[in-house]
Formats: sequence, structure tokens, C-alpha cells
Amino acid sequence: MKIVIAPDSFKESLTAKQVCECIEQGFSQVFPTAEYVHLPLADGGEGTVDVLMQGLAGEMRISSVTGPLETNVDSKVSAQWALLDNGNTALIEVAAASGLDLLDVSERDPAVTTTYGTGELIREALDLGVSKIMLGLGGSATNDGGAGIVQALGGRLLDRDGNELPKGGAALVSLERIDLSHIHPRCTQVEFIVACDVANPLIGENGASAIFGPQKGASISLVNQLDRCLTHFAKVASCTTGIDRSENIGFGAAGGTPLGLSLLFDVQIKPGIEMILDALDADKVIERADLVITGEGQMDNQTLQGKTPFGIAKRAKAKSIPVIGIAGSLGTEVEEMYNTIDSTFATVRAPQSLEQVLNEANSNVIRTARNIAATLKLGAIINTK
Amino acid sequence: MKIVIAPDSFKESLTAKQVCECIEQGFSQVFPTAEYVHLPLADGGEGTVDVLMQGLAGEMRISSVTGPLETNVDSKVSAQWALLDNGNTALIEVAAASGLDLLDVSERDPAVTTTYGTGELIREALDLGVSKIMLGLGGSATNDGGAGIVQALGGRLLDRDGNELPKGGAALVSLERIDLSHIHPRCTQVEFIVACDVANPLIGENGASAIFGPQKGASISLVNQLDRCLTHFAKVASCTTGIDRSENIGFGAAGGTPLGLSLLFDVQIKPGIEMILDALDADKVIERADLVITGEGQMDNQTLQGKTPFGIAKRAKAKSIPVIGIAGSLGTEVEEMYNTIDSTFATVRAPQSLEQVLNEANSNVIRTARNIAATLKLGAIINTK
Repeated sequence: MKIVIAPDSFKESLTAKQVCECIEQGFSQVFPTAEYVHLPLADGGEGTVDVLMQGLAGEMRISSVTGPLETNVDSKVSAQWALLDNGNTALIEVAAASGLDLLDVSERDPAVTTTYGTGELIREALDLGVSKIMLGLGGSATNDGGAGIVQALGGRLLDRDGNELPKGGAALVSLERIDLSHIHPRCTQVEFIVACDVANPLIGENGASAIFGPQKGASISLVNQLDRCLTHFAKVASCTTGIDRSENIGFGAAGGTPLGLSLLFDVQIKPGIEMILDALDADKVIERADLVITGEGQMDNQTLQGKTPFGIAKRAKAKSIPVIGIAGSLGTEVEEMYNTIDSTFATVRAPQSLEQVLNEANSNVIRTARNIAATLKLGAIINTK
Repeated sequence: MKIVIAPDSFKESLTAKQVCECIEQGFSQVFPTAEYVHLPLADGGEGTVDVLMQGLAGEMRISSVTGPLETNVDSKVSAQWALLDNGNTALIEVAAASGLDLLDVSERDPAVTTTYGTGELIREALDLGVSKIMLGLGGSATNDGGAGIVQALGGRLLDRDGNELPKGGAALVSLERIDLSHIHPRCTQVEFIVACDVANPLIGENGASAIFGPQKGASISLVNQLDRCLTHFAKVASCTTGIDRSENIGFGAAGGTPLGLSLLFDVQIKPGIEMILDALDADKVIERADLVITGEGQMDNQTLQGKTPFGIAKRAKAKSIPVIGIAGSLGTEVEEMYNTIDSTFATVRAPQSLEQVLNEANSNVIRTARNIAATLKLGAIINTK
């Protein structure tokens, strides 16, 4: 029996790797000779770098690049990113160089924040010869439509006088022409995957400025101003490329970053979990598996919204492989999960506080896994007709 | 597939019958055509009368009999008992007529409390023609070695002057002779089962007086006095019957009540759960079952100490029927259970207070049962080799 153990981390208690180990420990009490394959996962959020570093031979890198606020006295930030798969793949997160967490609350101003530093990281990766770039979009401080990335990679955003625009979303109002003749030569040679779990379009009432602007520091009037800027940027961009991106699903993520990226790269937008599953070659890993066990700290019908267990379960279902879920805890609504995950168990042992439960996470997962295995074994013995 | 659902109640939340219904509801989502047999259980404590009344056609009776303290102004108590199995079986609890809960704390005095009222209930049952009496021993206020029962059924406990002893444990010091020539004629005609979950002998440091005397109101000196009284009673009894009961396992229960009973009846002492399983003909109910599902509000290695799930699981194991446990919650130590109960799951959904968990007991059991069933079904499908 081949069992692929493919959980997310249990937030605040166990890493995905530790969850794998606990599940194997419990299962192997019942099935000591089964083949266990560990596929620790993440959904693009917390833990993503860890699981990709584990799954693909990789090294962490730290680069000094422009921060989200170039006008800052100390505008450089030390941004961490990863070079994976023997140097062939770069994993970069917008938050590392252009993230909201890099600014004090008083500094947050999406009129001027820029993705330029993220562009510098991409440039460094291209210079190193990667053939694939994976970019995570969560947590940006910006609303510049990815203009900073375009600028960092040699694109020129020009006003009516032919002058380069200053950085930041508000400056885009003066954009007259985009010159892509000097972009980094490797832009067209790499595979570019963007991990994005929101469906918001670039502009309008569900757009980048309206939905994410306020949390980045925009007042109502600035939201409207930035929305007009992105609308204008999209219009000029469509004149440049011949493709109108103003209604594309997901282009509202990270302050419209996909728009700028689409000027430079043949961008593929995927949910975070799909990017990770592809990067880790999950379809191949689960091939000929008899069972996939997944899990997460909390599971319920929300799990169907792009969370790890649902992502891997869909891949398994496509191959008719049964899936069992092990959850730190379950929400109240779980029935819809049963369409994709055959059975799911919470690991909580007794009425306890969150703190107590987190302390026992290890033994709870081992015990639950052991009992699931024993039940599977019974199912093979008894007549269930 | 025949599935016998045989749980105890989940204390403070679900009766055993309700647990049966929840488990069937969850299981039948996966196995809608299985044959479900409900065998709600108890272990001799709380809920025992309910499950026997449900399992065996029965009626509750209330009799006015002597309370534990005859010297009371209002010494009569209204004692409830059950006539089961179309009038063939009486179910009586010592606590009903001779229980500690019938007395205020200031009234508790095992020197004088008596099992006489319990004897009156037994007499009434004999008068009604029952062929079997089941007596539960928990919760007595007495330490009279069952002397009151002997007296109520026509036995005479005489002092050296041939006078009947007064009631209560302390009076036994004057016992000279036991006259059984006028006991109720049906005593020898009935099957008499005593449910007893303690192993304490009648006398000595682990005996009735030493272990249970203090909680019934005995001081240290009274404990010693009562122990001497029971020692003396056992000695006189052994002269009467030829059998020394002073070291018999379980004879320390209910203030030594089994000693008195043994003068009158061919007493069988059984753990409560065994008495109930026998009364409900559990061995026959589980015959040809493919699976037994049991459960209790709390399960752990302590479950092996005469609790319901272990009792029914042993019966099932004797017939090589697999057993799955569903627990409201699990203790920290559960591994030993696996020898008898193949797999066990807690139903708790998330870190919650006891109150929250009790409120969700219904849906928690249904959900857990559904997922166990789905896992069994997977076990039948996948290759577990």
C-alpha cells in the first residue's frame, strides 16, 4: 500500500513536515510495511517557502533592494527569497521587498509605495539564469499596478514630455506611453507563475484600490484617485500590448501587480496551492498511491476555497485515489467537504482550551492517525455489503 | 451488514438511546441499507434502570418501605424499583430504600442504618412471583452486612437471650445465633444476581467498614467497631451455613450486604455491566453482527475497569466481531484499549469548553459516525496490503 501524506501545517503547533511525521507514526502502528511518501504542503501563505525549500533542493538568499517607500531616508530593505531546483527556479514574495509589514502605520501611503524592489529581485533572479519564477502576491503595501516592477526591469513609463514617471500609484495619472524596448532580455525566456488567491479585477468597486486600498492607508478620496490611475494605466497598457486587462480575474491582487507583470512576461496566474502542487510535481508523487492523507489546523467547508487539503484532494480525485483528512479542529459546516475528501476527523481529544489543544497536537495527530488506520483495516476485513 | 450499536449514555448530554440514534444517523449516510440494531447500555450506575426498562418490557413501581434510619420520626421512604420482563424479573437498587442520599449529612450513622427497607422490596418482589432478582449495590448508607435484609425476609438474628437484634451494624456485636427456619419460602426458588463493581472483601483494611465507612459517617473508632461487628457476623454466619465469607471478593460492597444475601439466596455476584449484558441477552443480540459500535462520554484506559464499552467489547471479541468506540472525549492514556476496541474516536470538534461540547454532542456524534463509516468503506475499496 502506497500512502501519500500531504498536509498543510497545523498553525501555531506543527509544521507540515511534523504533521507528516505524526501521521506516519500513527498509521505505521497498524500498517508497518506500507510505503509512506511525505508531501508537506502550503497554500501560498505561511509555510510556503519552507515546503518548497524542503521539496525542491534550494537555498535562501537575501538581497538589498528598494523598499516599498523609496522616499524613506533608509529606503533599502533586506529581502529574502529562494533559489530552488538547483538554481532553475526563483521563489519571490511581493511582501519581501514591497510588503505592508515593512512600513510603520504612519508611513503607509499607496499613492507613493512601489513594487520597484520586487522588480529588482526578479532582475537578480533573471541575471542568475533561472528558467522559472514563482511570485507570491500576498501582503503588498502598493497600489502601483506593478509599475515599479516594469521600471526595475528596464521598461520606461513616460509622461507627455517623455520623462520617466516617479514611483508610486498616483504618478500613473501622467502616463502617456510605455516603452518596453529595453526590458531585461530574459523576460521573454522564463516561465512566470503568479500565486494569487483573490479573484478581484484591477479596477472598479471590487478592484485593487477599492478593496485593498484602505488597509494600505488610502482615504476614500485616494481610493478613487488610485482607481482612476489604474484605469488609465490599463488603457495605456492595452494600447501597448493590444490586450485589455481591466477586467481580468485576479489582476486586482497586490495593488494590480499582475498588470505590470503582463507587460513583461507571459504570466500564468494560479491559486497558491496549485502553484505549489505543480512546483512539487504532486501529480507524479501521488501516482499509483492507494490513499492520500491530507489535513490542516482547521478544516470545514471553507477548506473548499483554495485551501491545501482541497487542492491536493482534487488532484487525488482526478486519479480516483481516496482522500482522508485529519484536522486540528473542524468547523461547524463540513458536509460539502465530503464530495472531495472521503472522511475527515478532528484530532481534539477532550473539551480543552486552544492552548491545551496546541500543546497536545503531536499526540493528538498520532492517535487519530492510528485509529483511522485501524478503521481502514477493519473495513478490509468486515463485510460492508 | 449487521451493525449493533451498543453504547452507554454520554453523561450530561445524551442518553444511551440517543447515542444509538445519532450513530445510526451518521452511519446510514454511508451505509443506508445496513441492518442497525440498537442495544443501549449502562454499567450498573446512572441510566441502568432506563436501559433495562427499554430493553425488557417493564413497569416502574414505587413502594413505601423502611428507610435507612428506622429511628427517624419519618422512617418510611418511597422507593422506586422496576418489574421487568413481564413481571418475571425485579430490578432493585439498595440506594432506593437504604441509600446515603436519603439522609441529611447529620443523620449519617452506619452504626444504626439498616438494609431492612431493601429487604422489604425484595419481599414484595418475591410475593409478586418473580423468578429473578437483580440488585444494584451502589450508594448505600449502611454497614449492617445485609442484616436488615435477612430480618425483613423472615430470618432471625438472635442475641444470647434469644431476643431479636435491633437494626444496624453496631448491634451485630451481640449476635449469638441465626435462625433461618422462617425465611420467605421463595428465597430458594429465585435466581439472585447482585451487581457489584468493587472487589473489596467484607472485613479488614480493605473491607466495607474501613473503605466505605467514613463516607457514610463513621469515625475512626466506629470504623474499627463496625469491622469487628462484621467479623463476628461472618463468623456466626459461617457456623450457620458452613461457608466462610470473610474473604470473598466483593462482599465489602454496600456495607457488606452480600453476606446477608448469601444467607438467604444462591447469590451470583457480577460486575454491573455483566448483569446488564446478560439481562439484555447481549450475546444473542450481537450474534452474526459484522460490527459492534460502542461508546461512552469519556473513554480511556480506565474504560477497561468494568465500564460499558469494555464489557460489550469483550463479548464481541469472544465472537471475533470487530468493535469501534465513539467517545464524547478521550483521556490521555488510550493505548491499552486497542487490545479490545479496534479503533476509538473522540467526537469533540474544536477547542471548546465542556458546556459548548455538551451542547454539540448530537451533531458531534453524527459527524464522527459518518466519517468512521466512510473510512470503513474506503478500507473495503483500497488495497491495504
